[in-house]
Amino acid sequence: MTEGSDDIQALVALMARLPGLGPRSARRIVLHLIRKRTGQMSELAKLLDSVAVNSRECLTCGNVTDRDECLICTDPARANGEICVVEDVADLWALERGRAFAGRYHVLGGTLSALDEIGPDDLGIPALIDRVSRKGIREVILALNATVDGQTTAHYIAEALEGTDITVTGLAQGVPIGGELDYLDDGTISAALRARRRI
Amino acid sequence: MTEGSDDIQALVALMARLPGLGPRSARRIVLHLIRKRTGQMSELAKLLDSVAVNSRECLTCGNVTDRDECLICTDPARANGEICVVEDVADLWALERGRAFAGRYHVLGGTLSALDEIGPDDLGIPALIDRVSRKGIREVILALNATVDGQTTAHYIAEALEGTDITVTGLAQGVPIGGELDYLDDGTISAALRARRRI
Ligand SMILES: [Zn+2]
Ligand SMILES: [Zn+2]
Repeated sequence: MTEGSDDIQALVALMARLPGLGPRSARRIVLHLIRKRTGQMSELAKLLDSVAVNSRECLTCGNVTDRDECLICTDPARANGEICVVEDVADLWALERGRAFAGRYHVLGGTLSALDEIGPDDLGIPALIDRVSRKGIREVILALNATVDGQTTAHYIAEALEGTDITVTGLAQGVPIGGELDYLDDGTISAALRARRRI
Repeated sequence: MTEGSDDIQALVALMARLPGLGPRSARRIVLHLIRKRTGQMSELAKLLDSVAVNSRECLTCGNVTDRDECLICTDPARANGEICVVEDVADLWALERGRAFAGRYHVLGGTLSALDEIGPDDLGIPALIDRVSRKGIREVILALNATVDGQTTAHYIAEALEGTDITVTGLAQGVPIGGELDYLDDGTISAALRARRRI
């Protein structure tokens, strides 16, 4: 065995499977942590355990939270009339960093995809339509990625809301073609949100 | 707060400080883990805690281990007459992956450095000299990095062992396997040329 003990070897293997990491970066991180084993490493173990035990999906919007409803859904200062629909929690975090939006969110957890056989029910789109139809929502902002699947999903939701008095908007140009929100700088996201257009 | 809960935010911040990671890659990893919170994330927390609690330095060689002496030092099948001196545990792991060496190791934990005020005592070099002088060691292989500090350290140890009957060797310098001359630095090419061998 190369890496000192069975646990160290298992830890390197597990780390190497995390997104963006591989065997080399995993080994580097594990050796760094072992050098900081009484501080950073124990702290990381505790936090991972706590987040693993306490994290769940907000029952209202699908955001990651440690309670039934997330801090955004329960914040009395935020506007109730606007719901911003995103593909995943990373996109919600990116929009929040931009501080351009003060309404509520809805996390789809993906996009419609013929290839992957993901339909409206898999994304809870009927529940979304129900949610936005009930509560005095004036505007639904479809902040979906500028990919084919993202735009297909946006059009599907826009069509489903046709005939209601809800204004459906999308992010303005400024999101590059094929661009994923999570990889954009905060300013670009803010500008695109402010210049959002009716679909 | 952007990231769902205090713990999630602290976890992202802690992850972002690991070598090779930053805020973006940390957020991506944390969200990935939260999606796998009942499996991969709990497993990772347990392994980190176990490695943090059980890891220590081998009393003989300085390798990372979960016992007093590491598996390499206690392996009866390995040669006792050769000690390979490395800067850190990452180098020891790299050599073990290469499976080219079947002797014992000695981990210095750094190099001599005038700039950082690291002297022989800080690296336990007197203890190394003592170790290799006592136990019928025939050869000390200085597998140190081909940097100025690495080579300074190698020369210091070689001089300290002068007058003993221990053979002191260093890694051959040359063109790495698969290396293209055009991409190598001039020093490497010169060294490889000087050390040229009959084919
Ligand atoms: Zn929520
Ligand atoms: Zn050892």
